[in-house]
Amino acid sequence: MSGQATFADWIAVDWGTSNLRAWAMRGTAPVADAGSDKGMGSLEPDDFEPALLKLIEPWLGMARMPVIACGMVGARQGWIEAPYAEVPCPPVGASPIKPVVTDSRIDVTILPGLSQTSPADVMRGEETQIAGYLAVVPDFDGILCLPGTHTKWVQISAGEVVSFRTYMTGELFALMSEQSVLRHSMDDAWDEDAFLSAIRKGMADPQALAGRFFALRAEGLVSTTSPGAAKARLSGLLIGSELAAAKPYWLGQRVALLGAGRLASLYAKALEAEGALPETADVTRATLAGLTAAYQKLKDTI
Amino acid sequence: MSGQATFADWIAVDWGTSNLRAWAMRGTAPVADAGSDKGMGSLEPDDFEPALLKLIEPWLGMARMPVIACGMVGARQGWIEAPYAEVPCPPVGASPIKPVVTDSRIDVTILPGLSQTSPADVMRGEETQIAGYLAVVPDFDGILCLPGTHTKWVQISAGEVVSFRTYMTGELFALMSEQSVLRHSMDDAWDEDAFLSAIRKGMADPQALAGRFFALRAEGLVSTTSPGAAKARLSGLLIGSELAAAKPYWLGQRVALLGAGRLASLYAKALEAEGALPETADVTRATLAGLTAAYQKLKDTI
Repeated sequence: MSGQATFADWIAVDWGTSNLRAWAMRGTAPVADAGSDKGMGSLEPDDFEPALLKLIEPWLGMARMPVIACGMVGARQGWIEAPYAEVPCPPVGASPIKPVVTDSRIDVTILPGLSQTSPADVMRGEETQIAGYLAVVPDFDGILCLPGTHTKWVQISAGEVVSFRTYMTGELFALMSEQSVLRHSMDDAWDEDAFLSAIRKGMADPQALAGRFFALRAEGLVSTTSPGAAKARLSGLLIGSELAAAKPYWLGQRVALLGAGRLASLYAKALEAEGALPETADVTRATLAGLTAAYQKLKDTI
Repeated sequence: MSGQATFADWIAVDWGTSNLRAWAMRGTAPVADAGSDKGMGSLEPDDFEPALLKLIEPWLGMARMPVIACGMVGARQGWIEAPYAEVPCPPVGASPIKPVVTDSRIDVTILPGLSQTSPADVMRGEETQIAGYLAVVPDFDGILCLPGTHTKWVQISAGEVVSFRTYMTGELFALMSEQSVLRHSMDDAWDEDAFLSAIRKGMADPQALAGRFFALRAEGLVSTTSPGAAKARLSGLLIGSELAAAKPYWLGQRVALLGAGRLASLYAKALEAEGALPETADVTRATLAGLTAAYQKLKDTI
């Protein structure tokens, strides 16, 4: 890896609860990348600088290297708390924070997350993805949906985040399918029709939701429901009930899904089943575009 | 404990997923009791007889001792599967099952659970508590609510279980308060007003439920919500949404709560807040009364 330092003029970092990912950047283009499982959740404040250096050391040279980071690294339990910017506001641009570092080869800047007072809500990391999406689609006016462990629905107007709402659907699905009594009724199979039918049920009668979960277990005992159907129906019920609750966000709106992989495709199918036709965009590209926009804005002050 | 055998003429056993509890019985009265953590969930089929003998050995004598057991011991993953009786039917009375035992001093009978085809549902153990309650209140016509990890709402008429519905509320509360991101916002404190207000919210707008969970976390970050309020509100939202879904069961009906301790009192408060005035009954007494009724019915055939 020697010599790479001459190719990078700054480093982009996405530092979440479970993972750390870094890119050596030349202007707007990544020239190398690296990742580790040193997420914020497993680190004490003194652990952050060594974890970062271990990953990016091959990219460092003589000149002090700007490092722009987003995500849970800026949480209260992270490296240093980057206070939230309160919506409505642009997704990035509020005062970034610099942790004290001992290695003179790096200059680290952490981007703040966003908060909302009523209803209470917060995000860290997604604001940078939103900024990246808006850097590519600057005239976007509508709703961004960012599927994940904690899915965010975000209202965008005139380049600002107007309001947003977080749903724990992904975390609930993981807990219920892996740790509750329902785990006995699930395997890795998947029944697409069962998913779509459960979306409709979850949307049509969210009031009945609480009574539908145990039925997924009972159906496997009293009839012949396949494990794949039970898993798909749990997912469909949870996403359907999220869509019912988030309806004011997406109904009749321009919607873009900012995500990746299987979860994003489930949200796309669910929205399409309800008559919405979401645009889609890649979330890693958006993260890099957001960090790049922040770097370009900050570089004269770093 | 020697000599106790002369006092017992049969043994009552409540064998759940996590616990095993046994009573030495003389007619309708318990004369000794014992318990262990050898629940069905931790045992292979060959482990059941030794686990039982370890607990009841001091009560055994010359004569073969009848043992009447209810609960998950009769599940497919239990000692031996006791096929469900399908509702509508009396809570106990369907064909009990006898596992093969190697110790000639015991004669074990396992009571079957109940099943319902549509909506699919099952119970094991609660049917015996219901039978015990009906042995004490034989003219009961109305709704029994049995709060627990999996709360059951049961419609009783003319001594039969007409229909029932299971809600995973207790298990969801445990998973969300102990294992989800919400655990950071909770401690052992409890805010009663926050609980009652959340019951009303969960009841009034169950459609919005999915969006309310993450707010419990966010409120602790952007304002000054106490951990006790967050925990009480999570409980209230979940029980409130259960009450909304189970409304056809309890609204305008005679309701009896068959439970114990804190969880039963939360359901009582929640129902009272919604204008229902539940009767209450002790669940351990009901279990013993149900096993006794089954023993009296079966003893001529054992």
